[in-house]
Amino acid sequence: MKLLEERILRDGEVLGNDVLKVGSFLNQQMDVTLFRQMAETWKALFHGENVTKILTIEASGIGIAAITAEVFGCDAVFAKKSRTSNVSGDVYKAMVTSFTHGIVSEVIVPKPFLTGADRVLIIDDFLANGEALRGLISLVDQAGATLVGCGIAIEKAFQPGGKRLREKGIRIESLAKIRSMSDTDGIVFED
Amino acid sequence: MKLLEERILRDGEVLGNDVLKVGSFLNQQMDVTLFRQMAETWKALFHGENVTKILTIEASGIGIAAITAEVFGCDAVFAKKSRTSNVSGDVYKAMVTSFTHGIVSEVIVPKPFLTGADRVLIIDDFLANGEALRGLISLVDQAGATLVGCGIAIEKAFQPGGKRLREKGIRIESLAKIRSMSDTDGIVFED
Repeated sequence: MKLLEERILRDGEVLGNDVLKVGSFLNQQMDVTLFRQMAETWKALFHGENVTKILTIEASGIGIAAITAEVFGCDAVFAKKSRTSNVSGDVYKAMVTSFTHGIVSEVIVPKPFLTGADRVLIIDDFLANGEALRGLISLVDQAGATLVGCGIAIEKAFQPGGKRLREKGIRIESLAKIRSMSDTDGIVFED
Repeated sequence: MKLLEERILRDGEVLGNDVLKVGSFLNQQMDVTLFRQMAETWKALFHGENVTKILTIEASGIGIAAITAEVFGCDAVFAKKSRTSNVSGDVYKAMVTSFTHGIVSEVIVPKPFLTGADRVLIIDDFLANGEALRGLISLVDQAGATLVGCGIAIEKAFQPGGKRLREKGIRIESLAKIRSMSDTDGIVFED
C-alpha cells in the first residue's frame, strides 16, 4: 500500500536495526483517515470472505481494529493482556511474548466473544516474529472459529514470523513489507 | 442517549453495587456501530468547538476514541500506562489510579502529540471517581492545550468524579448517567 509506505518513510523512525517507531500516526497517535484507507484495502483483499469478527490484541491494534470493523460491518474484539477484576467466567487463553517489551503475557478473550460460527479476520499493527499472531490464532482455534486471515499494517519481512505462518497455510496480507532497515541505510520495502 | 441506556439494560451486568460489566459491546468486544452513534452525539454536543485532537487512555477507551476521531475529522492519541522501550524522548506524565484494577499507573503522552495549538476532547468509557480524567486533564494542561471538554460513555453519577470535575468548570457530556445500581435492584438512570 503506497500511502502507508510513503507515510513510514516520512514519519517513521528507525532505531538500530529492528525497532521502527510509528507512534506518531499508527500507534499512540492514530491517523484514523489512514486507518480507514488501510481498512478499505483489507476489505478489498478479503472480499467475499464474510468476516463476522475482527480480532486484535491490546493496545496498539485496537484503533486499527475498530475502524476495520466499521468497514467490514462487524464487531471487533481485543485480547486482553492479563486477567482483571472486570473479566470473569470462561475465557480462551494463550501465551504471547511481546517483541517490544520482551515479556511473556497471558492474553485472554471471554468465550462468548468468539464462537464456532465466527469467521475471524485478525488485525495487528506489526508482524515480526509472529508471537502475537500465533497467540491470536490459538484463540481462534480454541473457539472452533474459522480464521479468514490476518491483516497486518507493517511486516518486518526480515524477521521470520510471516514466512513461518504462511508456510502453515495462514493467509497474511501485510500493507507494507519491510525487506531491510537500519538507522544508517534507511528503510527498503519489498516490491 | 436512549440507545446506549437500552443497551446497558439489555447487555450490561451489575456485580455488587459498583461494577458494571459492559465488555460485550463497549470494552473488550466493540460494537462500532454503537460507537459511531455515540461519536455523532458528541459531535452534535461539541458543535463549533473546533476539536483538533481526541485524547483517551489505554486500553478500553481506544476504540471509542478512534471512531470519535473519524467523526470529528482529527487524530486520536491515547495515554500509555507505562514507559516501554518504544516510547522515548520528552513526555508529559500523570499518575492515575485505576478504579477497576486498584493500582496506580504512570500515564504518558509524548510531547509532540499534544501542543499548545490543540483543542482537546477527552473521551473515555467510564467516569466514576474521575481519576483517569484528572490524569488526562493534567496532560492537556502540561501541554498548554485547550480542553474543550470530556465525552464519557457511562457516568456512575453516584460516585463523586463527575460532580467534582464539573465544579471546577470542566464540561462533561456523559451519554448514560447511572443514578444507582445493584445486582438486586438493577440500574436506574438519571433523567
